[in-house]
Amino acid sequence: MENEVFALERAKALLDEKKYAELRKMLTEVPAADIGEMFEEIPKNQFAILYRILPKELAADVFVELDPDFQQILIESFSDRELREVLDELYMDDTVDLIEEMPATVVKRILANSTPEDRKTVNELLKYPEDSAGSIMTTEFVRLKEDMTVQEAFQLIRKVAIDKETIYTCYVTDNRSHLIGMVTVKYLLLSDYEAKIRDIMQDNVISVKTLDDKEEVAATISKYDVLALPVVDEEYRLVGIVTVDDAIDVMQDEAEEDFAKMNAMAPVETPYLRTSVFSLWRSRIIWLLLLMVSATFTGMIISSFEDALKVQVVLTAFIPMLMDTGGNSGSQASVTVIRALSLGEIAFENILKVIWKELRVALLCGASLAVVTFGKIFLVDKMLMHREITIPVALVVCITLCITVLCAKFLGCTLPMIAAKLGFDPAVMASPFITTIVDAVSLLVYFAFAMILLKI
Amino acid sequence: MENEVFALERAKALLDEKKYAELRKMLTEVPAADIGEMFEEIPKNQFAILYRILPKELAADVFVELDPDFQQILIESFSDRELREVLDELYMDDTVDLIEEMPATVVKRILANSTPEDRKTVNELLKYPEDSAGSIMTTEFVRLKEDMTVQEAFQLIRKVAIDKETIYTCYVTDNRSHLIGMVTVKYLLLSDYEAKIRDIMQDNVISVKTLDDKEEVAATISKYDVLALPVVDEEYRLVGIVTVDDAIDVMQDEAEEDFAKMNAMAPVETPYLRTSVFSLWRSRIIWLLLLMVSATFTGMIISSFEDALKVQVVLTAFIPMLMDTGGNSGSQASVTVIRALSLGEIAFENILKVIWKELRVALLCGASLAVVTFGKIFLVDKMLMHREITIPVALVVCITLCITVLCAKFLGCTLPMIAAKLGFDPAVMASPFITTIVDAVSLLVYFAFAMILLKI
Repeated sequence: MENEVFALERAKALLDEKKYAELRKMLTEVPAADIGEMFEEIPKNQFAILYRILPKELAADVFVELDPDFQQILIESFSDRELREVLDELYMDDTVDLIEEMPATVVKRILANSTPEDRKTVNELLKYPEDSAGSIMTTEFVRLKEDMTVQEAFQLIRKVAIDKETIYTCYVTDNRSHLIGMVTVKYLLLSDYEAKIRDIMQDNVISVKTLDDKEEVAATISKYDVLALPVVDEEYRLVGIVTVDDAIDVMQDEAEEDFAKMNAMAPVETPYLRTSVFSLWRSRIIWLLLLMVSATFTGMIISSFEDALKVQVVLTAFIPMLMDTGGNSGSQASVTVIRALSLGEIAFENILKVIWKELRVALLCGASLAVVTFGKIFLVDKMLMHREITIPVALVVCITLCITVLCAKFLGCTLPMIAAKLGFDPAVMASPFITTIVDAVSLLVYFAFAMILLKI
Repeated sequence: MENEVFALERAKALLDEKKYAELRKMLTEVPAADIGEMFEEIPKNQFAILYRILPKELAADVFVELDPDFQQILIESFSDRELREVLDELYMDDTVDLIEEMPATVVKRILANSTPEDRKTVNELLKYPEDSAGSIMTTEFVRLKEDMTVQEAFQLIRKVAIDKETIYTCYVTDNRSHLIGMVTVKYLLLSDYEAKIRDIMQDNVISVKTLDDKEEVAATISKYDVLALPVVDEEYRLVGIVTVDDAIDVMQDEAEEDFAKMNAMAPVETPYLRTSVFSLWRSRIIWLLLLMVSATFTGMIISSFEDALKVQVVLTAFIPMLMDTGGNSGSQASVTVIRALSLGEIAFENILKVIWKELRVALLCGASLAVVTFGKIFLVDKMLMHREITIPVALVVCITLCITVLCAKFLGCTLPMIAAKLGFDPAVMASPFITTIVDAVSLLVYFAFAMILLKI
């Protein structure tokens, strides 16, 4: 990174020394995202000072970059006039994000200081469900009419550009706001100035509905490599657009959420170093407790075979290996299937295909592992530790291993698909959950074969 | 999704019935990405026919969307003239991607059919290391001079737009190709036609170096919400740009890679249903074997305490719960730290802060779990199963639980950071790896306390 390391230390020194004119001059050259990071490094009582140093437009850009708790501190220091100025610069989707994060008293002040028109738009946008396209769209886009010429379109764009989140994709609507076409600025530039929008617009527009899942919207933007996607309501009226930068945010948030859920955690939104110990504890303890309690069943299985274990204590030594291998095999299958589901590569209809594939993979994996284990038992274990190991004991271990891998892969691929079908997030059916079930299954198989083959 | 479900079945029927004119007319309305998916549903001997039906430009767009094995089938059916036509339409970064995926004979044909100029560029681009900014950049961007007027800039853009991957961000270079500024088309549209580029360009441009990691490039694009990022060489000469759609691909690939690695798999690039059983087996078996062998150590620990277990068989019943809880605690910490590392929220310098935070979280988690377990042992286990459980046994279990969680969180947060510091991918230090180590640690602690407190 060339310019990222702007002289943060220098800026902080200027702030401390109250050399505001110099600091202002320096900061006008710095990207908003970097100034946003500066707030994380200065004491809270300097927030308002630093913010007021910034030129108005840059200030609004920086404001959007800040974490909600920092935004709240700033708003509480704002006069009503200052608050109105910020709100005026924000895009509608950012205003909505802000309102969703702030406590009721702050929200009240924000709404009181919005124009009646903005208040109406905000209220409309707030009605969309949390994860819908409507909740992340913005209403600031360029709307063209089909009987405009390219020249008129450019005149319009020049006039409204400053207030629009993107101008590079313009949408064409009819008199009742129905989406009838789109045209990119690139295409406008390549067209004759006298050409009619009607004749150059692309009339088969990819769009999403207001209630579509935001993850699906992001996937569509990525699939078609577009910079923005129009959002239409049930009557196919154009109500907003989602831009590529918002799609990136959605994809990142969803990935982080999946990483957390797949590893038995509730997602935490704040950056790691700024998350309190208590929040981390809260995000982790519930799953730990749940999984610990369910692991008790595994313990019960062992208990009920205590007598068998007393006769053949050597069996105990293989329990960790069987449990770990089962857990790992299961999590491989579940994560593969969970990701394939979330990338849209598979759906519930494919469940039989998936099971058939996973069972063949499991057979290959199980067989390879069993062969290696059988060799290892006689070459390593018998020599080093357990002189009492017999061929039947080795057989019990290897057969259990094979069956455990089969069960693990089967559960690993079916449970997430069933969860998805039932409307749950398949990510929850990942490693920790599968591990607990597979543990129990593998132990049951283990003891069953031990009873039969070793006659205990 | 409004338009995604284009009549795939209808298109396939038209292809089968050889109604090519009708099919061609239908497909001109369909986005390239959707036509690309059609290839997955038709027999390979129809590939060339379907491809030749498409208008030239659309054909090239579809070609880029295809999987490498499909591209190879098509190229092998191409005449040299057809191959030249495709290559002519491809952007440089796509040509490079193609060459990297094709076998040597196909590469030879591609290079033989490229213009000398393209061949030179391709060879330059192929020299960049696999994960560098240079390897994903394209050389087709709009280059302006600082003494141009806005009007001249627009004339240039109109002339070259058709061949450029993006025109919305234009870069200004001096006579020796040094990057000296940038200007967006939005800003150009807002400026006076007579204004000089020099006066309106932004001269503090965020850029990346050719050898920067592509993940970092993607993160920068996301951080600053830009549509493209210029790539400069060591002398700050502008050599290419990375566009936002490539950044999205990088982010998605990296996330998939992390999901795979964190769950003991080698990443597989093809979509799940099209990946062969053998490829899946290969991507999974290596880690399974490795982890199975290392789980043997856990078995050895149990073996060496066999005598203790014979005296107190009840201890065996708690082994799965201790191992699972340890594994889950460790993977929570490791995944949190791995993601924080990859999002740039923490670096190796923060290791002490991270350890201190994780230890406090561990203490809270360990204590809560221990209290619940202590209660559960007497309320549930003693009643239902193990009448022989004594307070010392419960104490051994709870103390071990606490220490296991502490060790697990400690190892979970330190190992990924050390791996990153040593230049390895921290994702490998996730759940499965940590679990295996934590298993051994928890058993050692368990037996140590058992020996002391239970005097066995």
